[in-house]
Amino acid sequence: MKTKTIELEAIGVIKTPWKTPDNMPIQPTGAKGIKGIIEVFPKFSDGLKGVDGFSHIMLIYQLHLVENTKLEVIPFMDNTPKGIFATRSPKRPNKIGVSIVEIEKLEGNKIHILDVDMMNNSPLLDIKPYFEDFDNRTGTKKGWLTNKQDIDKYHFKSDKRFI
Amino acid sequence: MKTKTIELEAIGVIKTPWKTPDNMPIQPTGAKGIKGIIEVFPKFSDGLKGVDGFSHIMLIYQLHLVENTKLEVIPFMDNTPKGIFATRSPKRPNKIGVSIVEIEKLEGNKIHILDVDMMNNSPLLDIKPYFEDFDNRTGTKKGWLTNKQDIDKYHFKSDKRFI
Repeated sequence: MKTKTIELEAIGVIKTPWKTPDNMPIQPTGAKGIKGIIEVFPKFSDGLKGVDGFSHIMLIYQLHLVENTKLEVIPFMDNTPKGIFATRSPKRPNKIGVSIVEIEKLEGNKIHILDVDMMNNSPLLDIKPYFEDFDNRTGTKKGWLTNKQDIDKYHFKSDKRFI
Repeated sequence: MKTKTIELEAIGVIKTPWKTPDNMPIQPTGAKGIKGIIEVFPKFSDGLKGVDGFSHIMLIYQLHLVENTKLEVIPFMDNTPKGIFATRSPKRPNKIGVSIVEIEKLEGNKIHILDVDMMNNSPLLDIKPYFEDFDNRTGTKKGWLTNKQDIDKYHFKSDKRFI
């Protein structure tokens, strides 16, 4: 099967305090309580009905500041190279980020959110309700992240390696 | 901010037993043990190194058979309309699916996987390692899905509404 182009359209934009990719949280779990606002473009706002019944949503967005791709990277939290698909590094072939954030409130076409770990003005591609009965996995094998639980994930920050 | 086009490129294709969107599982939890094969295009295969250290991966893929978009839908598991972003319905503005599947084995550029709930030949956009320390949320508020735990999610199947 041939590689082909897939065209997507941003449904909104995510406003966050993170203006540069250095020294920011690397996951929502490291951004506890940090506030952001999702601005869904008005033509999509009917799609938000009922979303605030959920406490958490999964955001799918473009890692829009990433310029190049690497198939092997030295990730945060380690010091040897890994395949990009064995990491959460942003230098992925398709620059797609996924973050699970908490909803503070819905106001019109704006969703106030907590635990934001994405860059300011990230183009938003999709919002899915987080449903723990479907989305949780436990007892998983964690590859090179095994024994990284000791890292203080609540305060771990990015550095300049992916800029 | 204006809506703009975002161009992505498939990194591979997902082979599954599901050839038509009728009567298929609606989530990986409803597809326990169902086998599929991810064929990553050779030019991306270096990115797979170490991915099989993880037992689970998050797949981001295109819902390629979905033709139209709806901002309000009547989802599986309910009978009243919801905003599309409060559901997992495939008729989303950007036809992106996310599934957490189990790795059986990695062979070259092929990943044998279990719990597949996506259509055969779904174009793959990204693979992320599932890391439960980052990705699990518990005690969440479940909106219209509250009290749907009684539904037999392990056997719930799609019907023709999203074809």
